[in-house]
Amino acid sequence: MPVVRQQASALEPTLARICSYHLGFIDEHGDPSGAEGGKLTRAALMMAAADGVGLRPEDVRCQAAALELLHNSTLIHDDIIDADELRRGRPAAWKVFGAGPAILAGDALQALALRMVVDDPGPARAEISSVFAEALGLVLAGQAREFTVRLGPGTGIAEYDRIVEEKTSALLECALVTPALRAGRPEHVLAALRSAGRHLGLAFQIFNDVEDIWGDPTVTGKPVRSDILRRNPSFPVLAALSTDSPAGERLRRLWHADATTAAHLQEMADLVEESGGRHTAEQLSRSHLDSALEYLGQAELSPAASTELTALFDRIVNRTP
Amino acid sequence: MPVVRQQASALEPTLARICSYHLGFIDEHGDPSGAEGGKLTRAALMMAAADGVGLRPEDVRCQAAALELLHNSTLIHDDIIDADELRRGRPAAWKVFGAGPAILAGDALQALALRMVVDDPGPARAEISSVFAEALGLVLAGQAREFTVRLGPGTGIAEYDRIVEEKTSALLECALVTPALRAGRPEHVLAALRSAGRHLGLAFQIFNDVEDIWGDPTVTGKPVRSDILRRNPSFPVLAALSTDSPAGERLRRLWHADATTAAHLQEMADLVEESGGRHTAEQLSRSHLDSALEYLGQAELSPAASTELTALFDRIVNRTP
Repeated sequence: MPVVRQQASALEPTLARICSYHLGFIDEHGDPSGAEGGKLTRAALMMAAADGVGLRPEDVRCQAAALELLHNSTLIHDDIIDADELRRGRPAAWKVFGAGPAILAGDALQALALRMVVDDPGPARAEISSVFAEALGLVLAGQAREFTVRLGPGTGIAEYDRIVEEKTSALLECALVTPALRAGRPEHVLAALRSAGRHLGLAFQIFNDVEDIWGDPTVTGKPVRSDILRRNPSFPVLAALSTDSPAGERLRRLWHADATTAAHLQEMADLVEESGGRHTAEQLSRSHLDSALEYLGQAELSPAASTELTALFDRIVNRTP
Repeated sequence: MPVVRQQASALEPTLARICSYHLGFIDEHGDPSGAEGGKLTRAALMMAAADGVGLRPEDVRCQAAALELLHNSTLIHDDIIDADELRRGRPAAWKVFGAGPAILAGDALQALALRMVVDDPGPARAEISSVFAEALGLVLAGQAREFTVRLGPGTGIAEYDRIVEEKTSALLECALVTPALRAGRPEHVLAALRSAGRHLGLAFQIFNDVEDIWGDPTVTGKPVRSDILRRNPSFPVLAALSTDSPAGERLRRLWHADATTAAHLQEMADLVEESGGRHTAEQLSRSHLDSALEYLGQAELSPAASTELTALFDRIVNRTP
């Protein structure tokens, strides 16, 4: 997306270089790169939602670019926090440029994104700015809650939902609701779009958790079973841990022990499947997707946009191309 | 300041704890603390400037709190980036809570500060939001530029000025200009206040650089000569490096060599003084303070507020109580 590229490259040179690398525009030497820079899921959602409320693409182009920048700011910091060395199959920004500069680059994208939204004139500027700033705060709260839970005694499903609603759903809700705010749609439409985004985030994250354990690393772009390795609160594991079966019991012992070899991870993955954690997760992801589509149907969007968003929701959750 | 405290403590619990620790409200165990949480310089400037344009404190209270939170978000990240273990005489937040959580806490303060400004109704809401977002972007650009310069071949005075105008002056300008925006003052007043803030930042930073070398660590709160140790672009050093004297020549050799023992640092400090770097810096700091006060005089503020701001400027630059 040209706006994203142009805004990132107008930053202070070092920050521009780090951000442009992270976004896939250049390689680590500063040369043009054909690397995959993310699927621009949130921008695509916002554009489709804009069409659905009768806006032109240029009416929310700046907001769509800002949302992608905001999302990417959290990814840059997330990789540092989790010491993740790979992002989209390439070395993470902090591995290439160092953690210090990468912290500043993430901060700079965050500041840039909010500035773009704040500065863009047009209807509902204040409301849209508020939605963006709130969404960012929620993502950070969710990440912090997840971090705390990971280090602590674990968590239940209610806490899992809350974390996902914050760290994953908040930006999806922002994508869907921004065009409706700009178009002056009534509160019941805004509420339906927010609910659609919330369920979409849950469906996506739960499927994502399944993929972390049983997915193809060349598709997910990250090492397999990293959630188990880090004792991240992952839905299939939480579902399995809460069962009474012998498999669940054995899983609990391994989960709370320092069991981190490849053989341990494989055994834990098998135990999660045996206790029904995978099945429960796959079912629940589908059920959240159904709810998301149901709320989408209440948002009074144009039929063409509804069809497009339905396909988009499905692609987002199931990672189909 | 109650607003700062209340907003920080309303964050997600882990983030609230880290931020409240950093701000001096609690100790590392979560118990109330009488620690020094910063001098609230920027809030004090904004309050005095508000008085000067005929506003009541409550007209900019939210913005003053937000500015302090924004400033502190950059400090939390700065300590991680520079691996500074002490902040205001206590262990830095990242030393107590870990770098990952401290990155999130800085992000959260940044998001919170911008959200407070964006959400606060009242005159010139959009303009003030824009000033805040721009100021944050400038601080980050300045920090990145400084980081790059430090790792690279060094820098000249023009680049130094630019870095300071970004990393130090931007938030001071924001403090002074926000009340004038809210009060609807004309452009020549805004310009005078921006210039006052720019020179105030330069005066402060240059004096700060002098203090880093010859100041009392119990007053500055950080290890003496850390700028020399890290080869930070510091004004007295830049001035000394640019002289033709034998002392300047010897300093250049040590500066570009891996000379980092206490004896080296002492020798380099002496060489900076011998080459006249300290004298030049002290003179220039005073001269920038004079310029700041001159611009302040053009801002058409009430006489009482002008007197208060004059005293405040002097205290900020010279760190007098």
